Amino acid sequence: MIHVKTSVTRPSADVVRRLAKFSSATIHEAQGRRGALSSRIKPIDRSMHFCGPAVTVRCAPQDNLMLQVAIHYATAGDVVLVSAGEFGEAGTFGDVLGNAMAAKGIAAMVTDSGVRDTADLIELGLPVFSANVAIRGTVKETLGPINHPLVIGGEIVYPGDILRGDADGIVVVRRDEAEEVIALAQARVDAEDEQIRRYRAGGTTIELCNLTDKLKAKGLLVED
Amino acid sequence: MIHVKTSVTRPSADVVRRLAKFSSATIHEAQGRRGALSSRIKPIDRSMHFCGPAVTVRCAPQDNLMLQVAIHYATAGDVVLVSAGEFGEAGTFGDVLGNAMAAKGIAAMVTDSGVRDTADLIELGLPVFSANVAIRGTVKETLGPINHPLVIGGEIVYPGDILRGDADGIVVVRRDEAEEVIALAQARVDAEDEQIRRYRAGGTTIELCNLTDKLKAKGLLVED
Amino acid sequence: MIHVKTSVTRPSADVVRRLAKFSSATIHEAQGRRGALSSRIKPIDRSMHFCGPAVTVRCAPQDNLMLQVAIHYATAGDVVLVSAGEFGEAGTFGDVLGNAMAAKGIAAMVTDSGVRDTADLIELGLPVFSANVAIRGTVKETLGPINHPLVIGGEIVYPGDILRGDADGIVVVRRDEAEEVIALAQARVDAEDEQIRRYRAGGTTIELCNLTDKLKAKGLLVED
Amino acid sequence: MIHVKTSVTRPSADVVRRLAKFSSATIHEAQGRRGALSSRIKPIDRSMHFCGPAVTVRCAPQDNLMLQVAIHYATAGDVVLVSAGEFGEAGTFGDVLGNAMAAKGIAAMVTDSGVRDTADLIELGLPVFSANVAIRGTVKETLGPINHPLVIGGEIVYPGDILRGDADGIVVVRRDEAEEVIALAQARVDAEDEQIRRYRAGGTTIELCNLTDKLKAKGLLVED
Amino acid sequence: MIHVKTSVTRPSADVVRRLAKFSSATIHEAQGRRGALSSRIKPIDRSMHFCGPAVTVRCAPQDNLMLQVAIHYATAGDVVLVSAGEFGEAGTFGDVLGNAMAAKGIAAMVTDSGVRDTADLIELGLPVFSANVAIRGTVKETLGPINHPLVIGGEIVYPGDILRGDADGIVVVRRDEAEEVIALAQARVDAEDEQIRRYRAGGTTIELCNLTDKLKAKGLLVED
Amino acid sequence: MIHVKTSVTRPSADVVRRLAKFSSATIHEAQGRRGALSSRIKPIDRSMHFCGPAVTVRCAPQDNLMLQVAIHYATAGDVVLVSAGEFGEAGTFGDVLGNAMAAKGIAAMVTDSGVRDTADLIELGLPVFSANVAIRGTVKETLGPINHPLVIGGEIVYPGDILRGDADGIVVVRRDEAEEVIALAQARVDAEDEQIRRYRAGGTTIELCNLTDKLKAKGLLVED
Repeated sequence: MIHVKTSVTRPSADVVRRLAKFSSATIHEAQGRRGALSSRIKPIDRSMHFCGPAVTVRCAPQDNLMLQVAIHYATAGDVVLVSAGEFGEAGTFGDVLGNAMAAKGIAAMVTDSGVRDTADLIELGLPVFSANVAIRGTVKETLGPINHPLVIGGEIVYPGDILRGDADGIVVVRRDEAEEVIALAQARVDAEDEQIRRYRAGGTTIELCNLTDKLKAKGLLVED
Repeated sequence: MIHVKTSVTRPSADVVRRLAKFSSATIHEAQGRRGALSSRIKPIDRSMHFCGPAVTVRCAPQDNLMLQVAIHYATAGDVVLVSAGEFGEAGTFGDVLGNAMAAKGIAAMVTDSGVRDTADLIELGLPVFSANVAIRGTVKETLGPINHPLVIGGEIVYPGDILRGDADGIVVVRRDEAEEVIALAQARVDAEDEQIRRYRAGGTTIELCNLTDKLKAKGLLVED
Repeated sequence: MIHVKTSVTRPSADVVRRLAKFSSATIHEAQGRRGALSSRIKPIDRSMHFCGPAVTVRCAPQDNLMLQVAIHYATAGDVVLVSAGEFGEAGTFGDVLGNAMAAKGIAAMVTDSGVRDTADLIELGLPVFSANVAIRGTVKETLGPINHPLVIGGEIVYPGDILRGDADGIVVVRRDEAEEVIALAQARVDAEDEQIRRYRAGGTTIELCNLTDKLKAKGLLVED
Repeated sequence: MIHVKTSVTRPSADVVRRLAKFSSATIHEAQGRRGALSSRIKPIDRSMHFCGPAVTVRCAPQDNLMLQVAIHYATAGDVVLVSAGEFGEAGTFGDVLGNAMAAKGIAAMVTDSGVRDTADLIELGLPVFSANVAIRGTVKETLGPINHPLVIGGEIVYPGDILRGDADGIVVVRRDEAEEVIALAQARVDAEDEQIRRYRAGGTTIELCNLTDKLKAKGLLVED
Repeated sequence: MIHVKTSVTRPSADVVRRLAKFSSATIHEAQGRRGALSSRIKPIDRSMHFCGPAVTVRCAPQDNLMLQVAIHYATAGDVVLVSAGEFGEAGTFGDVLGNAMAAKGIAAMVTDSGVRDTADLIELGLPVFSANVAIRGTVKETLGPINHPLVIGGEIVYPGDILRGDADGIVVVRRDEAEEVIALAQARVDAEDEQIRRYRAGGTTIELCNLTDKLKAKGLLVED
Repeated sequence: MIHVKTSVTRPSADVVRRLAKFSSATIHEAQGRRGALSSRIKPIDRSMHFCGPAVTVRCAPQDNLMLQVAIHYATAGDVVLVSAGEFGEAGTFGDVLGNAMAAKGIAAMVTDSGVRDTADLIELGLPVFSANVAIRGTVKETLGPINHPLVIGGEIVYPGDILRGDADGIVVVRRDEAEEVIALAQARVDAEDEQIRRYRAGGTTIELCNLTDKLKAKGLLVED
């Protein structure tokens, strides 16, 4: 088996930049409520956000050898996405590799395991999303695949898919669907802005969510 | 079955205002260590706090139809309390409905499921307490009861009960016990302030917690 | 059985001060990846950190009698370490006892159960690390051991062991190994600073982690 | 506060006997999908089942004093229902109290904590439902309410409510709704038997679940 | 979007029959330690096992509409694989649909949610694997995809992939890899039988696992 | 660091045989409610039980190299006790190593991770206790300590300590306390047998648990 696939077809920088204007929740809705990674994966500081193509890595639990390898093959703007078997009780990533990533212009680090040196990482400014903060160290022993399709957080991610993360979580967009998603997301934002404007002007949920007929059809009983 | 009961007997604004001076933990103790909802339900920003009467809502998991309906029937100062089966992997609530609530002067939104658009909600200033932050969307399909007694976070809440939430969590106070709880809470705060004053003056736990006789009765053995 | 052992052999203040310069993760690595408590125990505010000798306490779940006793026997600079059976749904500790600790100059409070009055505790400035924030009260009924060896967070801690906590978690150092750990931690920090300097200068992980031979030996396959 | 209410209005033995013919799931459905306790509470052997009126008990975590008291006040046919704060790491109940219950003709023991001596309890033949099996012992220190309304497993149970448990879990039926539930449960069993008969005769789900119009209305798209 | 794809390319009955001779663990190892679904999904009785092609279904949490639809389109020998968002507190499946499946000769039912009527299902003899046993009912409201790729238990399953389940759990085999996996599994069984024979004859792990050189290379230190 | 300590001081076979007459719960109580391992570690079949001295092993998560080594150094009657970081999603142990153990007369296998081949292991008759059943394979890469003190299931176990396991769980007894524990356990069994005899003869809990004075002192209020 090939472990490392170095060739990844990435989206254009322009697509990434335009997709980055939308929140993870808006993108998730725009593409038909698909692509949300498990909510267990959170930013270590809620001001963190990112958008970029995925470099996918599978590590053994409590072993970050392949993460070290992946940083070598990642390029500026990439999001390094590491599944380590949902084992949270290990700091798969810390400030030394954080500096290695920042120096290369990596867009973000995402993992279903733990990270450490969080104070330094926050100061460094690299967006880091993880399922835990933990100080236990990792070994560097086990080979695994880089840039193969990766199941993480209950979703499948292909190398070059676009990941968007913010305070609410992370969503994955297939590369060839990105343009369509951008258009749908913009339409959704416009519609939501209009909804918010109407609520501020005194609109009600019954009216703005078009509930009257729906509730009647379902047989809602209201007691005055 | 009636789904929506529109008539809720609410406490007076004065009672709510006076109860709001005490922390959730103080109120919980003052009423005999009762009424604390599960600690899984937390504010999305720890500076958030609220006090107000409960409007109770039961949604199906990953379905927020009845929340939309409940906002219609809630009034200024109400706390909208939504149980959705403890299903955390869905954003039952976000910034559009947040604006609908804020426009009506709703006091807070509380749920045992997830919420999203947290950055916008924090900026909006609406207190939001939830068991999770998650971006997965919800359907609007299933009827459920509004303003019926609701079990949430391991406690039962009746419509019009007063909910008090802060950084530590949420406590429920029966409407007709509120005056008594206020008096007991004030007494407790006074006693605690006095305890703190004494500790700062050099008092010891053995002395201030009246432990000497108690420990003797229980047979504590100390080795010098 | 003796419940309270009052005699604890503590490390010197100088050792504590020198150990406090290193992060929990660095110390954990320096002593051979040992001593990390479970990541479930976190600071209630991530700016909190501490270093000091352990006073160990075992409470029954939802019962803080022995914590009250332990504060009496603790001295300035001590870390009060409380296991209460990993029961999180109780506020074992709050601002009144927090003031009692602060008045005595206690260095930190650590527990595998919950705490409350977190806003007041953060304002008080006492470092508090816990597995949960919860408002439910505790009884004061059950005797238990103070300053006996204590298993907490999956590690064993002996009275007088040095605990170091920060945003990443907590690590325990045996008192008689502290000098060696300080030396190893300093060496590790120096090596990491050098690594970071090299990454910033353009070094790669393959090179700086010495991966070339290792990956070859393990049979890594790369597809260009 | 009164701790023990000795007066419980129980359903008739006849109602209990007739309700006992239906499974927990059938009863739950028959009463409108209400009353199911959390699925964390399971029989210690899946052949166990019971039906009877609730005697409700609240214990402190890892403390079974009030269970000892409750057995005294329970009568033949009762189900002793014990909430101990969802603390599973304690054997709140074992074979000695099991024999005390069996000798009195108690119908079942149910708890959201743990039990122990399971081999002996299975041999004894007393139905025991719990959230865990655990060997840690309990203290006998803390008073709590008996025969007050009790929230357990996310549902509220009033003393004298009827509990029905089997391999699938436990459901609570309000005493004054029992006759209606029995009728609805019988109708449901009859309808399900007929459905099963039709499936065995070759019926399809589209036909027997009346899906054709429903799926059309919802816009199901099928690709041949 | 097409909801239901009716056309599934299934493996031959002969391939399924030959694969069924191997345990889930053996198959998982034979294909390079891939394809194991999360261990949360277990048989409701440990004697249950199955092998067959996947029909994939996505339901909303607490909603089994699409399961009803899927049974219609499934054929004899199929394994119906239902993801319902990992929501365990609902009985997505029970004995009525169990009879519908058994009547059609369905090979097994697998879900990441709950099931009920387990006593009847065990008597029926249909293999049922689930993440929970729960009695709460489901609505029938929400459309979702049938026979699209499905992420379940942390693995991706394509319609027509072969699922093998037994007491240890479930593994998925890609249809076009099945022949190779069968060959590798047979080789593994032969090797393991030989290992077991040697252990029974007095062989040691150091010898039979070829540990001598490996441990020397890693620097194992043994103290006599 | 020495990895493997081969010299373990074991209890006499006679002590093990006499201790084996008591249940895990009885032993736990007899030694003052100490020594119970976490209830997450269960037998794979509830008829399994064992008693014997501990051989302690620390593995990396999803890595069973040191277990292979430990079997080599274990002797007939030993209990092999393996902590692998509480990582459950891996089958650390299966039927091949099970046969290796059985051939050597090992008394039991205990781990805080997962095991597989459970049907074969049950047939083999080797007592196996684990935190999970899982099919994912393990690597054999990482060195770790054998016969050093081991924290597992929240307790510390020293090599040569006696472990007793049954359907309720596992308890550890210090080797030099075993004789005293046996005496105390026998006294407890005798007292419990007498209690059970009295309950069967109609005794009440108030009487047999000596509750009258205790409840009066605590202020129990009973409403007739």
